[in-house]
Amino acid sequence: MITRYSRPEAVAIWSQETKYSIWFEIEAHAAAKMAELGVIPHDAAKAIWAKGKDVVWNADRIDEIERTTKHDVIAFLTHVSETVGEEARFLHQGMTSSDVLDTCFAVQLARSTDLLLGGVDRLLAAIETRAKEHKYTVTVGRSHGIHAEPVTFGLKLAGYHAEFQRARKRLVTAREEIATCAISGAVGTFANVDPAVEVYVAEKMGLQVEPVSTQVIPRDRHAAYFAALGVVASSIERLATEIRHLQRTEVLEAEEFFDKGQKGSSAMPHKRNPILTENLTGLARLVRSAVTPAMENVALWHERDISHSSVERGIGPDATIHLDFALHRMAGVIERLNIYPENMQKNLDRLGGLVFSQRVMLALTQAGISREDAYAAVQENAMKVWRGEGRFIDFLKADERVTLPDADLEALFDLGYHTKHVDTVFDRVFGAA
Amino acid sequence: MITRYSRPEAVAIWSQETKYSIWFEIEAHAAAKMAELGVIPHDAAKAIWAKGKDVVWNADRIDEIERTTKHDVIAFLTHVSETVGEEARFLHQGMTSSDVLDTCFAVQLARSTDLLLGGVDRLLAAIETRAKEHKYTVTVGRSHGIHAEPVTFGLKLAGYHAEFQRARKRLVTAREEIATCAISGAVGTFANVDPAVEVYVAEKMGLQVEPVSTQVIPRDRHAAYFAALGVVASSIERLATEIRHLQRTEVLEAEEFFDKGQKGSSAMPHKRNPILTENLTGLARLVRSAVTPAMENVALWHERDISHSSVERGIGPDATIHLDFALHRMAGVIERLNIYPENMQKNLDRLGGLVFSQRVMLALTQAGISREDAYAAVQENAMKVWRGEGRFIDFLKADERVTLPDADLEALFDLGYHTKHVDTVFDRVFGAA
Amino acid sequence: MITRYSRPEAVAIWSQETKYSIWFEIEAHAAAKMAELGVIPHDAAKAIWAKGKDVVWNADRIDEIERTTKHDVIAFLTHVSETVGEEARFLHQGMTSSDVLDTCFAVQLARSTDLLLGGVDRLLAAIETRAKEHKYTVTVGRSHGIHAEPVTFGLKLAGYHAEFQRARKRLVTAREEIATCAISGAVGTFANVDPAVEVYVAEKMGLQVEPVSTQVIPRDRHAAYFAALGVVASSIERLATEIRHLQRTEVLEAEEFFDKGQKGSSAMPHKRNPILTENLTGLARLVRSAVTPAMENVALWHERDISHSSVERGIGPDATIHLDFALHRMAGVIERLNIYPENMQKNLDRLGGLVFSQRVMLALTQAGISREDAYAAVQENAMKVWRGEGRFIDFLKADERVTLPDADLEALFDLGYHTKHVDTVFDRVFGAA
Amino acid sequence: MITRYSRPEAVAIWSQETKYSIWFEIEAHAAAKMAELGVIPHDAAKAIWAKGKDVVWNADRIDEIERTTKHDVIAFLTHVSETVGEEARFLHQGMTSSDVLDTCFAVQLARSTDLLLGGVDRLLAAIETRAKEHKYTVTVGRSHGIHAEPVTFGLKLAGYHAEFQRARKRLVTAREEIATCAISGAVGTFANVDPAVEVYVAEKMGLQVEPVSTQVIPRDRHAAYFAALGVVASSIERLATEIRHLQRTEVLEAEEFFDKGQKGSSAMPHKRNPILTENLTGLARLVRSAVTPAMENVALWHERDISHSSVERGIGPDATIHLDFALHRMAGVIERLNIYPENMQKNLDRLGGLVFSQRVMLALTQAGISREDAYAAVQENAMKVWRGEGRFIDFLKADERVTLPDADLEALFDLGYHTKHVDTVFDRVFGAA
Repeated sequence: MITRYSRPEAVAIWSQETKYSIWFEIEAHAAAKMAELGVIPHDAAKAIWAKGKDVVWNADRIDEIERTTKHDVIAFLTHVSETVGEEARFLHQGMTSSDVLDTCFAVQLARSTDLLLGGVDRLLAAIETRAKEHKYTVTVGRSHGIHAEPVTFGLKLAGYHAEFQRARKRLVTAREEIATCAISGAVGTFANVDPAVEVYVAEKMGLQVEPVSTQVIPRDRHAAYFAALGVVASSIERLATEIRHLQRTEVLEAEEFFDKGQKGSSAMPHKRNPILTENLTGLARLVRSAVTPAMENVALWHERDISHSSVERGIGPDATIHLDFALHRMAGVIERLNIYPENMQKNLDRLGGLVFSQRVMLALTQAGISREDAYAAVQENAMKVWRGEGRFIDFLKADERVTLPDADLEALFDLGYHTKHVDTVFDRVFGAA
Repeated sequence: MITRYSRPEAVAIWSQETKYSIWFEIEAHAAAKMAELGVIPHDAAKAIWAKGKDVVWNADRIDEIERTTKHDVIAFLTHVSETVGEEARFLHQGMTSSDVLDTCFAVQLARSTDLLLGGVDRLLAAIETRAKEHKYTVTVGRSHGIHAEPVTFGLKLAGYHAEFQRARKRLVTAREEIATCAISGAVGTFANVDPAVEVYVAEKMGLQVEPVSTQVIPRDRHAAYFAALGVVASSIERLATEIRHLQRTEVLEAEEFFDKGQKGSSAMPHKRNPILTENLTGLARLVRSAVTPAMENVALWHERDISHSSVERGIGPDATIHLDFALHRMAGVIERLNIYPENMQKNLDRLGGLVFSQRVMLALTQAGISREDAYAAVQENAMKVWRGEGRFIDFLKADERVTLPDADLEALFDLGYHTKHVDTVFDRVFGAA
Repeated sequence: MITRYSRPEAVAIWSQETKYSIWFEIEAHAAAKMAELGVIPHDAAKAIWAKGKDVVWNADRIDEIERTTKHDVIAFLTHVSETVGEEARFLHQGMTSSDVLDTCFAVQLARSTDLLLGGVDRLLAAIETRAKEHKYTVTVGRSHGIHAEPVTFGLKLAGYHAEFQRARKRLVTAREEIATCAISGAVGTFANVDPAVEVYVAEKMGLQVEPVSTQVIPRDRHAAYFAALGVVASSIERLATEIRHLQRTEVLEAEEFFDKGQKGSSAMPHKRNPILTENLTGLARLVRSAVTPAMENVALWHERDISHSSVERGIGPDATIHLDFALHRMAGVIERLNIYPENMQKNLDRLGGLVFSQRVMLALTQAGISREDAYAAVQENAMKVWRGEGRFIDFLKADERVTLPDADLEALFDLGYHTKHVDTVFDRVFGAA
Repeated sequence: MITRYSRPEAVAIWSQETKYSIWFEIEAHAAAKMAELGVIPHDAAKAIWAKGKDVVWNADRIDEIERTTKHDVIAFLTHVSETVGEEARFLHQGMTSSDVLDTCFAVQLARSTDLLLGGVDRLLAAIETRAKEHKYTVTVGRSHGIHAEPVTFGLKLAGYHAEFQRARKRLVTAREEIATCAISGAVGTFANVDPAVEVYVAEKMGLQVEPVSTQVIPRDRHAAYFAALGVVASSIERLATEIRHLQRTEVLEAEEFFDKGQKGSSAMPHKRNPILTENLTGLARLVRSAVTPAMENVALWHERDISHSSVERGIGPDATIHLDFALHRMAGVIERLNIYPENMQKNLDRLGGLVFSQRVMLALTQAGISREDAYAAVQENAMKVWRGEGRFIDFLKADERVTLPDADLEALFDLGYHTKHVDTVFDRVFGAA
């Protein structure tokens, strides 16, 4: 995890303190249910909760014990005994480490996803605000980096809004995938722990019961989870790439906010670089790098092996923390984005009306010319403009194959024609006004 | 696409013939709606459909035309003109190639997913049958490849059933992700095509309307789609790995069906190898290899670039066809799997009762011994067994720290103790009987 | 393998005919050496070679036999018997299928690499020609997509030349990695085949001897091989991305050649899109997708399992054929690239001299002003230019912190200052003239 | 970076202190050369070195400054000024941040690679020792997890030795790929910094000169570097997987050393799990996850963008530190591996001589029977053994198709036959004695 690309809320979920606190909750809730079932003494379960619930567990001491036991959960339980007293021996009865570890991981991922949803919501709000602000700000639509036909900047942003709505939905689904609880004991048979304990702990921890755990929660769930994060990161990359393009010197239709006192380059004082969105492009690659190892983690041997663990110690915090940071950074970029409508207009005018070429062609076909001939006539005149030889409209007027009256031709060069369905799209994305 | 890992139904979806037939449908439906809207003549739309609907389009001729136009959709439309006649000039009015290509890709992916769902269903049925057959066939549960505690073979399979139920759900979601239709024209503004055309074509093709297409359907959808396929492939890898383990010479608890006349090895006539599940392990890697490029495809430039296209010409057919094949191969393996309960019992007996070590330990803690002391005593005796020095029960009886009466000790070595919740799990997976 | 992204030479290496022909060579050479060692009759070895060397093996018939044997090499040997006669029973003595399969794969990969080297050489030649052509064509260097300082177009290309020289070296190393021969029999012990056979076949097939094969050639070699291909593909992506940027409407400093009769867009007759380099961007993703499965193939179980095989049936031909195609397509793009020096100059002038900001700052520090103050003064004036308020030189002259005489200031705005080390770099890349 | 999977030596290379110390060296060496060239005062260069060379730079203070400047190198230079005094204004003349950052990254990667080479050497030594110890310890070779033919444990290890020799070579090549120095100024033109400075700094820092840097060192180098790490990690995975297999309860031919006081499972006191090699399997996945983002980093825009930076802040330390740890952990596993020759013999005997099936078949073909008939006869008898119906040798003797005299048949069941070329392979791997 790279500190500079993290927010404290996200980091806190993965701290040793949080982890041990979740472990304690799981163990203590399990004990409470076991007491109810008569497996362990009521008083013990109550005492454990009373003495332990507010403890901040000592990670260093647990590490110290682990150096002997070489087993983290046993080290933790030993430390709980030191702190809470002898009743702690009733903890973990019939359970296995994975019951604690996997359920804790589920809680951490679920909490992280809640943060991610917050990030997406902030980003959605930012995009919506700016989209509505620029609903009718005309700009050129580009395919292949080449001017195509006019769109509006609001329309552009509406597309991103729809994409992040999907991102939100994917995160909700991903959260459901991993928010499950397993308290099923060794190899998942419930031999030494009643299924009712699992049901109880699940409810207390805000999770669903894992239908079949084989000591571990099956890792296809986590593969699906990290894959969803990878897709969301890719959407961030798309928006970041858009802004990087818009900020290019020759384009300059939008620009990341540039602070007073900021230096764009140590060598070149004139620079204002889209460094936040370039950074986001890189963060997207980082988040995505969790996907393949998460998939490789699925095929654990038999009822479980522990190869997934080292992977998840890495990708668990890294992918969630970096994506959380990226969503907020992206939201910040959009919120403060400098948008330059005049430059959009200037760029739009650059091709001298070529962006209306399709409409001219369609008008010709409607006037009875074959599609092939219309295409050829329009393309030929367009290429002259491309070569800088003059204005599109003039060439068209002079071309005898273009049988339309001059006034009709001129009427085709109309931006309103291209913006007439902006409302339709806005309604689809933001709902009817 | 590797022919030997394909089924004809899956391959057919991606043939040139199918593609052109879908293209024609899209164009013709669009024309029908345009006629209704008064954009093109009714008669033309009708004639196009009447003359074209049963044509098998000539892929070679289209290729030939494309060598001049260097544009596949234009080549197709030219060929339609050759075949259907001059009315064809009314096709594609105000549309752009992507309207056809992306909507067609959606149809192909949706149809492929229907096949995948069929494959999952066959696999689910096979797993269920074998799980119920072996509901109480006792076998050892293994963690880290080491004997842990008894489970049943049915329980093992129930876990896979739950996993492929999730796979099914993921495929349904993935299908929804990509089953959308875009007929929005250049850069997605509907300038030259009414949104009603899109609505109409979507319905005819069994798709949803894409809320914002920017000439292309946004590729986050496809990234999510291929990621889902990668997760399903990983689940296949897990089941394949399980069977490979079970067939190992020293384990031999299950074995792929071995045909008369089959040769396991050109050199060693005695061999019976788990080649199908090894093959499935490899296929899982292949299917997963589509995930990263699909995610890299998301960040297209501005309203679109065409970098995704070459990627999708590869991964579109490859990932779906190979996963389809893998699901059916996996189903076949399970359907005909040789299962050897006697070997399971033999293996279970191998550690001389060590698999009951936890129960002994818990009994000791319930008799008042601290968890640490109970663990130490049981571990010490277990290690003697591990070193082949004698029987677990004998060592326990001889150990004075083990304060339980011999009869109570012996009662702990009971398989029924471990199978008592098989019903609970089966109810969760297959529903209450 | 996608036919439209393939060259026949590359495809031919992976045909069934070529494969069986290589299989026959391996078997026949092995037989020749065995005869020399007295293991099989001399006459048999000679007869096999004489009768078989020019045969085009019948892939359909072999497929037919395989449907019974379910084993490809046994099917092949059976077919050789049918064709060559009973001497064929002396073939394959003490060998195992992998001896044939893995050695054949090595030959196919080595031949493919030779094609790739040819592709790189064509690309290097194209880059060199164009680099020398535009050695002193001044253009703006861009960092973060923002104008930085002047460079030359030749310098830009020189960097790519150096990169593809490295690509070449990586391919040579990659070829060495995989060009090994294993004829070591079951589990690689040479129990039934003399190591001298391996040495002989290796030499005949132009390969090195694999020091330790465990029935298979170890797959770390192939992982390294496909990783090298992935790196080369990434370099292609970088060059393709450069050209896509240069062709953007607002930049237009270079452009893919656009054929007469070509149509850029079915809808917009004015379009000229960088479709080849976009396509190359996608192909790079496809080639790279072979890297991870090749790495996942390394950890075969014990002496071998066959999970790598299905993967390699995919990535073997796909990655080599597509990379071969990509190298030639890239070379073609460079060879025919339209380069527009006037547009380069126009773009360079766009920022009104800001690209000289560093030189001004350095001159100020050399005149005794602190770096911080110099930076601040230059940045402040630059930002005014950025906002379109006037010319950089005028602001500098008017700023009293800028203590340089006007003539000295003007002398700083000199392109020659930035091109003075072009020769140094060219010498490094292309060698001293 | 996961602390528990790190060694302090490897972590230290990536500390803030080390980074700033390398930055200072680069800047100070550059200043020394500039002084020699007369660009800056000799005394200043000397004073900078004298005052700065032993400073431990204050990372917190630099962070504080960066919060204003939003630029790390400028923040560092400001801090150097605070510490060293006003001469520091002569630092960084004509240089750009990337000159410092990229050259520093090269130094860190080179140093990390030196550690990795040390790790490989330790592993090679461990493998060699154990290989020679068990040169003739007979064990069964397994293909597809199924008993094939006898090998020796030494032979098995020799194969890994050869693989890690290749790993070593790949790391040496990878080190050469990235050990380059760029001091070429903005967009790499040397406009403001003489190429001689680069040559001088390169030599001082133990690096090669980067032939063409475009402000940054080209990232194909880093892609190749991390790919090499991924291949090495995959080799670790193969060895780890081997040991996990050997430790399986049913196999138990080797076992990770198990410490006194260690607990295998919190629930099951009898467990001894291969947790180190399972952990290594996971670490291999983690290290490999750096490969794809490193390849995605190659296609930076024009002369550079900064998207690679966030990626490298992650994968730079993570991949090198974890691989370093993994190599040492693997070496430790091999050094202390418990090896059980008696169990190997026991397993070898398990198939009742079937492992000699090939030799029987070959003897039959040499006695004049066709390969097909010999195969069929041997297979048929083998399958009876497979079904547990009796001993292989007895079935063979009783089969009239098997025309060999009993004594000849018995002579075929000879382990020495399979170990006769162990020396050949050992000579290839370890050199002739």
